[in-house]
Amino acid sequence: MDKIKVIAFDADDTLWVNEPYYQEAEKSYCKLLENHLPTTDISGELFKTEIANIAKYGFGVKGFVLSMIETAIRISKREVSAEKIEAILNIGKELLEKPVELLADIDFVLSNLKSNYILVVATKGDLLDQHRKLNSSGLLHHFHHVEIMNDKNDAEYHKLLKRLDIKNEEFLMVGNSLKSDVLPVLSIGGKAIHIPYHITWAHENSEKHEADGKYHEIEKVIELLRIMPKK
Amino acid sequence: MDKIKVIAFDADDTLWVNEPYYQEAEKSYCKLLENHLPTTDISGELFKTEIANIAKYGFGVKGFVLSMIETAIRISKREVSAEKIEAILNIGKELLEKPVELLADIDFVLSNLKSNYILVVATKGDLLDQHRKLNSSGLLHHFHHVEIMNDKNDAEYHKLLKRLDIKNEEFLMVGNSLKSDVLPVLSIGGKAIHIPYHITWAHENSEKHEADGKYHEIEKVIELLRIMPKK
Repeated sequence: MDKIKVIAFDADDTLWVNEPYYQEAEKSYCKLLENHLPTTDISGELFKTEIANIAKYGFGVKGFVLSMIETAIRISKREVSAEKIEAILNIGKELLEKPVELLADIDFVLSNLKSNYILVVATKGDLLDQHRKLNSSGLLHHFHHVEIMNDKNDAEYHKLLKRLDIKNEEFLMVGNSLKSDVLPVLSIGGKAIHIPYHITWAHENSEKHEADGKYHEIEKVIELLRIMPKK
Repeated sequence: MDKIKVIAFDADDTLWVNEPYYQEAEKSYCKLLENHLPTTDISGELFKTEIANIAKYGFGVKGFVLSMIETAIRISKREVSAEKIEAILNIGKELLEKPVELLADIDFVLSNLKSNYILVVATKGDLLDQHRKLNSSGLLHHFHHVEIMNDKNDAEYHKLLKRLDIKNEEFLMVGNSLKSDVLPVLSIGGKAIHIPYHITWAHENSEKHEADGKYHEIEKVIELLRIMPKK
């Protein structure tokens, strides 16, 4: 870790709570449609729609709501009522108003790291919504740069490193998703630290063994202060 | 114009066709709902919904589709059918697949300007959709930087200039919207060139006299080559 100059943090479920809000939203959604299908089937159908739409809608709340509506129409065989569609729109609006709840020790860890490293945010999702969360998080002043990425793959990380004007081995990514925060960064020659969160969106699941031994896994963000040398 | 180092271009209706696609989509939408209200009233109601939702949804196709659905439910007094909601989702998906049609001379003008100026894109809209359009435009190689902004106001332009590390008077914005591309840039001490497009989204309308004489207005982008000195 001696070469690291820039530490990038994922945002959702790394800096603050996110997936629990989505799961709560999905629960309300399934309840709304329970007369059409059992809950687990609704979730499965919704997931299929989300994956099919990612190339068009990208990540974030607005695409999630559009996929919920599309799924409701499909599984109800076009019988779902306007009231229910309205309720789905409202589930989405509530998601866009959720308070930003920081994970434990985040502010303390960032405050300490920033005297030795350049800190950035590297996240997916809706542009406006991620900026809203960053603004109300109170964390913005720790970061030198915020990058809202279309997707977190090799090519997008390459672009980020080019923009930051650093070498790949000077870059450390910290996040809760093996698929988005760890594997692509290792693949382009950067470093990664995985902090699993207690729940993960199915799309972010990845086989752990793919990169075993090539990255650190820690339980709490505060352990970063032990791993990262002070310069 | 002698001090200018960076020229930023708006994207939609400055680099390529956009608003005509939205108006075509809105026309299909009104047709779909014509049994509930006359067309002009539907457009008026949709505009009200869009404005009310901007703080939550921001700009771009996904928010537009969510606002179309919300408006359809409201004006139909919750009677709109699932088939029609499905048709609205499809109008949105079609918008996300529209070909990128460059405005006249854009490629030629950018090719010529870039030997003397740093060129950037400064646009609003959905992150993924704007990147899709840039990628398929064939223009990306002309630009040093692409900024997808939450909104185009004084604060956001300040951030952009800070990121570009230039003085305000070294910045020139070129675009079709007085409200978004001209007035805020003049207000922070930058320069602006207005290229009106034949149709403008009502939200972008602004009183022209507010800044009369403080900016150039040109009819065609090729006139930029006459205005901007070669260095």
